[in-house]
Amino acid sequence: MSSTTGRIFKATTFGESHGGGLGVVVDGCPPRLPLSVEEIQRDLDRRRPGQSQLTTARTEQDKVEVLSGLFEGYTVGSPVAMLVRNLDARSQDYQHMREIYRPSHADFTTEAKYGIRNWQGGGRASARETIGRVAAGAVARKMLSVLANTEVLGWVSRVHNIQLDPFSDLNYSLKQVESSPTRCPDSAAAAEMGEAISEAKQAGDSLGGVVTCVARNVPAGLGEPVFDKLEADLAKATLSLPAAKGFEIGSGFGAVSLTGSQHNDEFVSDADGAIRTATNHSGGVQGGISNGETILLRVAFKPTATIASAQKSVTRQGEAATLEAKGRHDPCVVPRAVPLVEAMVCLVLADHWLRQRTVDVLEGLPPS
Amino acid sequence: MSSTTGRIFKATTFGESHGGGLGVVVDGCPPRLPLSVEEIQRDLDRRRPGQSQLTTARTEQDKVEVLSGLFEGYTVGSPVAMLVRNLDARSQDYQHMREIYRPSHADFTTEAKYGIRNWQGGGRASARETIGRVAAGAVARKMLSVLANTEVLGWVSRVHNIQLDPFSDLNYSLKQVESSPTRCPDSAAAAEMGEAISEAKQAGDSLGGVVTCVARNVPAGLGEPVFDKLEADLAKATLSLPAAKGFEIGSGFGAVSLTGSQHNDEFVSDADGAIRTATNHSGGVQGGISNGETILLRVAFKPTATIASAQKSVTRQGEAATLEAKGRHDPCVVPRAVPLVEAMVCLVLADHWLRQRTVDVLEGLPPS
Amino acid sequence: MSSTTGRIFKATTFGESHGGGLGVVVDGCPPRLPLSVEEIQRDLDRRRPGQSQLTTARTEQDKVEVLSGLFEGYTVGSPVAMLVRNLDARSQDYQHMREIYRPSHADFTTEAKYGIRNWQGGGRASARETIGRVAAGAVARKMLSVLANTEVLGWVSRVHNIQLDPFSDLNYSLKQVESSPTRCPDSAAAAEMGEAISEAKQAGDSLGGVVTCVARNVPAGLGEPVFDKLEADLAKATLSLPAAKGFEIGSGFGAVSLTGSQHNDEFVSDADGAIRTATNHSGGVQGGISNGETILLRVAFKPTATIASAQKSVTRQGEAATLEAKGRHDPCVVPRAVPLVEAMVCLVLADHWLRQRTVDVLEGLPPS
Amino acid sequence: MSSTTGRIFKATTFGESHGGGLGVVVDGCPPRLPLSVEEIQRDLDRRRPGQSQLTTARTEQDKVEVLSGLFEGYTVGSPVAMLVRNLDARSQDYQHMREIYRPSHADFTTEAKYGIRNWQGGGRASARETIGRVAAGAVARKMLSVLANTEVLGWVSRVHNIQLDPFSDLNYSLKQVESSPTRCPDSAAAAEMGEAISEAKQAGDSLGGVVTCVARNVPAGLGEPVFDKLEADLAKATLSLPAAKGFEIGSGFGAVSLTGSQHNDEFVSDADGAIRTATNHSGGVQGGISNGETILLRVAFKPTATIASAQKSVTRQGEAATLEAKGRHDPCVVPRAVPLVEAMVCLVLADHWLRQRTVDVLEGLPPS
Repeated sequence: MSSTTGRIFKATTFGESHGGGLGVVVDGCPPRLPLSVEEIQRDLDRRRPGQSQLTTARTEQDKVEVLSGLFEGYTVGSPVAMLVRNLDARSQDYQHMREIYRPSHADFTTEAKYGIRNWQGGGRASARETIGRVAAGAVARKMLSVLANTEVLGWVSRVHNIQLDPFSDLNYSLKQVESSPTRCPDSAAAAEMGEAISEAKQAGDSLGGVVTCVARNVPAGLGEPVFDKLEADLAKATLSLPAAKGFEIGSGFGAVSLTGSQHNDEFVSDADGAIRTATNHSGGVQGGISNGETILLRVAFKPTATIASAQKSVTRQGEAATLEAKGRHDPCVVPRAVPLVEAMVCLVLADHWLRQRTVDVLEGLPPS
Repeated sequence: MSSTTGRIFKATTFGESHGGGLGVVVDGCPPRLPLSVEEIQRDLDRRRPGQSQLTTARTEQDKVEVLSGLFEGYTVGSPVAMLVRNLDARSQDYQHMREIYRPSHADFTTEAKYGIRNWQGGGRASARETIGRVAAGAVARKMLSVLANTEVLGWVSRVHNIQLDPFSDLNYSLKQVESSPTRCPDSAAAAEMGEAISEAKQAGDSLGGVVTCVARNVPAGLGEPVFDKLEADLAKATLSLPAAKGFEIGSGFGAVSLTGSQHNDEFVSDADGAIRTATNHSGGVQGGISNGETILLRVAFKPTATIASAQKSVTRQGEAATLEAKGRHDPCVVPRAVPLVEAMVCLVLADHWLRQRTVDVLEGLPPS
Repeated sequence: MSSTTGRIFKATTFGESHGGGLGVVVDGCPPRLPLSVEEIQRDLDRRRPGQSQLTTARTEQDKVEVLSGLFEGYTVGSPVAMLVRNLDARSQDYQHMREIYRPSHADFTTEAKYGIRNWQGGGRASARETIGRVAAGAVARKMLSVLANTEVLGWVSRVHNIQLDPFSDLNYSLKQVESSPTRCPDSAAAAEMGEAISEAKQAGDSLGGVVTCVARNVPAGLGEPVFDKLEADLAKATLSLPAAKGFEIGSGFGAVSLTGSQHNDEFVSDADGAIRTATNHSGGVQGGISNGETILLRVAFKPTATIASAQKSVTRQGEAATLEAKGRHDPCVVPRAVPLVEAMVCLVLADHWLRQRTVDVLEGLPPS
Repeated sequence: MSSTTGRIFKATTFGESHGGGLGVVVDGCPPRLPLSVEEIQRDLDRRRPGQSQLTTARTEQDKVEVLSGLFEGYTVGSPVAMLVRNLDARSQDYQHMREIYRPSHADFTTEAKYGIRNWQGGGRASARETIGRVAAGAVARKMLSVLANTEVLGWVSRVHNIQLDPFSDLNYSLKQVESSPTRCPDSAAAAEMGEAISEAKQAGDSLGGVVTCVARNVPAGLGEPVFDKLEADLAKATLSLPAAKGFEIGSGFGAVSLTGSQHNDEFVSDADGAIRTATNHSGGVQGGISNGETILLRVAFKPTATIASAQKSVTRQGEAATLEAKGRHDPCVVPRAVPLVEAMVCLVLADHWLRQRTVDVLEGLPPS
């Protein structure tokens, strides 16, 4: 029950870091959506390893094959199945993991749950599982773009103790984000962050950070008032990413420092007569439902659990042991987490967009 | 699709702040669980209004009737349906809400979504909807207690700028929590918080805060490695509560200040030979799956949107208007949010406990 | 996981034959649907016992209370919760059931499943559970009527060996169906059926029969091509009714007597240029998707398991015993099964109607 | 929402008759199940075309590749993804389908639903979609065999007007079934059926038939009392197969000819003291829940819609046209439907077996 997300726009991922391949089946994407393999590959290229000095040395081309669901450049309503082969899998790199549990990894808990573990890599807990998410997210992104001109963009707003002013401009562009390997759109901060990551790598250590993500042009009315609040689904989606530890919508934890009169977003009419809010502490969502303002969220990622330095741990039998990691890894996952956060946000919004289609069916029959 | 939570242990809430009543249908609770109406009422009494000066003046007894699913003191496997009547609903208090949107409430978004709104109260966005959650959570709590001796306890760790030391003792008891109307287990901080809330009330303003929640004696192995990570489901469940703005598991946003070598939880064997972690930055969850340590999470709540002071807003027609709230409300929702957070955590854990039963079916057939 | 049906238009029933009451929570019904309690009561009146000599002597008024979801005559998008109280429950009538399993009832299997049983009546297996289905079906029926002018009508086409010519007119009206207590629209056959049922009752025995159901004005395009074929969901929905043993769509088992050239439904253009089929062996569904023709299905019901004559059985301890039923029961359930079949068909069609709304979102963007 | 079946043991199929390939993702299969590719291939070989003169001339090896989920001969709890490539797809054979709707096929309804159609083959409505079902069913079959020694076996009990005595022996073996290309275990009837099919083929026509299926050693207690009755889920699963028109459990439509006293299955204690039924009109299911007797069901399949003779139809523009099929097809699908019915029954039983694990959790705590 674990590998599917979404109620209507559904993505089911499969595959492990080692084995025949990874991928995803996207079910529920509307037919007649123009879609090309290149659009999917573009997002995959943003997540793949080996993009810069700051990421893991594992080099995977991660070329996607669309197995089904496309015909003459359009979706046809059948599942869009996508496959990426594992090519640079080196099982021998993981021999040390066979007996010793890696701290703050999923080795121990995977065995606690399943009673068995594919020790050749991280199994489903591997960051490679996110390939399927990004491929599915690319389809969702395209749908949102065509249907509502919605744009989802994330960036690195913090690495360790280097952070952007949270009150800074949120109008960054994809070009600004992609102009640095850290994916921080502020060039000065980006340089600092890159340096910090390099230093951590040098020291055999790792860093965490925060990804900020916005969704622009989200129509009002998406979300649900109770369990499936839009912010709740966004929280679940992003907290399901490897290494995520915290989530905020709008003002987030910062809301606690304000009083109600400071925090409330007053309604105003704009020049076109549209009802807007004067501030956006709500982060684009009120009572679980989008209000038409920009959706704003932040996700905290812990420092990469795999570090080059020796660590104390225990064997499967509980005996003390020292672990010296040999697998390839990122000293800071946050730059590569940006397309992952975007993909999850796209999947949530696409699902809720379609859900809303089942709500506004009596639009032409106003009660009064 | 909005009113049900859970895959196996499922709760479906119904009802609005005004109308015949509110309640919940709990489906999937195992049969043969000893359960009394009193156990359910006990949790409802903790959430009901009018418990102290710090909460809303709306006085509802909120007595629960169990309509089905219990027989001679035990669950029988059929849905446990529970109903609470609305008694002290005063529609006239809400006349001012008919035309003017309350800032940072769900009035505007409810209309954007549904094209119609029951303006007599907050509808499904009303805090009264949580009655069903608490009743369902009480059933889940009992199941967890009987099956695994699991204990779920929350408390107020922050109100506005008054907060407990995050490194303070987490071994609080229910008695300590309930000893103050603020539900802060530290009596000095509790007093300060109470005072701050009273001052805000006096000033016609409101405050937010943070609820910390722990789950003790959660067996290792609960959760899922991908979309339904335990922390992801906990995030969704708690972010679905009214006024919630942020979520942290374990170290949360604080993880970003640490390096990997500082943050990783080393494995150790305890005196009994059990594998434990030396620290608990993971908050009891690694790779989406519980590791047997105490689950630790925090939820941020914004200051109550309803305030007594006049606020600027617009009418449904977009004309500028001034809103002067007359409904009864809490100057700070956080004390009453404690049983809500607990209920949601109980629901998530009960569901994952039962899900794990479908995983460990071949326990007796070890592969090697 | 058992008490909910539907993906978007969802109904969750609760309650047993004995206890506080029975009902249903309908979630996912679109807002702004005009709906009155009377419309719901009308369908409930068709299913309630005591309508004629041919049905059980249990007299329940089965008056429904709508607890939530309606406001000033319209649905508002929140769950429509409905409650019917149990009034004429006589637990003492069931004392004989406490120890002896009734043949072809669910007593034995309920204990096999749950390890516990509310022996005061049939629990969830009681026909009274269908109250919730009929109430939910009435809401679905109204939605279908408003949105698509769809009409769902069932009738008794067979009781024991008395049957309507299967090639007879299918254009019966509700008035014709309701003109006889047997709900057979052919008055001669209805009289024969009534007599046969009376004779069976006299003999302490019971009879089964077949309900035929049509759905008129179902738009083409409802259903799904794989697991959720429209006929598959209709089969599941109707086979989930108590005492149902078989299901046919269109030609059904009779299809086997025909060759492909005889069975295929040729396409033709009608006077208005619309594409129709010359015959309707398909029963309105091709490849799992409605084709715009009348949907036609039949459901077989076994003879009532409760009979007045003494029967051999065993006790819970496996000792031979003789059972003499004392509970009130119908000598033939088929007349009262008609509104049940209709309700289930309405629920399936309403759900698929809303599902289709998530498919045709790019209607304005033809690929060529 | 269409391509997934199951609540816990879930199968998601993908792929069309033309394109990169078809397959399935099985999620929720318990870890530590011994499983080999050969076991999956064995079932696929029973469904693939070209097995005999009686089936389509399309020759596909249909070799399965397991992409993930297996490690050293065991499942590991992660999704078992399986892929079969399309090799012998001849798009040009389908040119005639581009403009003319094939009678009693899904061409017209697919366009009505999706507004677009991959006319190169039957798309998702193609019988090739069932490859994924059979592969998933093989995994389910293995699980059931290991956990409960459950055996699922189907056979052809009728082709056109040649049928087995319905009261005949139900103790057939797989060997008997597979001894004839018709999969009828009675050799005399099998010969007759084979002849009838050959004649129909010769005549450019096609035949339908009935598949009988039994499940032996199903533990009592599987199923649910309301919407997800075991027979309801079996009906849905088998009616979702291409060309299925009817379903019966146990006595089925034949139940209508009997009175209650004839039809009821009396309880008896067998030599070992186990509670059994003297007859099995119930077909192994009472009140939606298995009673430990052999599960018995029958599925009716219509004659193959594709026939070699010319047929009248219309074009997409509604103009009269004559269709002369050129695609390869089976003159009678029923022999190849046997492994399909078995696969669907295995999937339903596996899902309900796991669901029951979430019910019997308090076995050790009897209430009295």
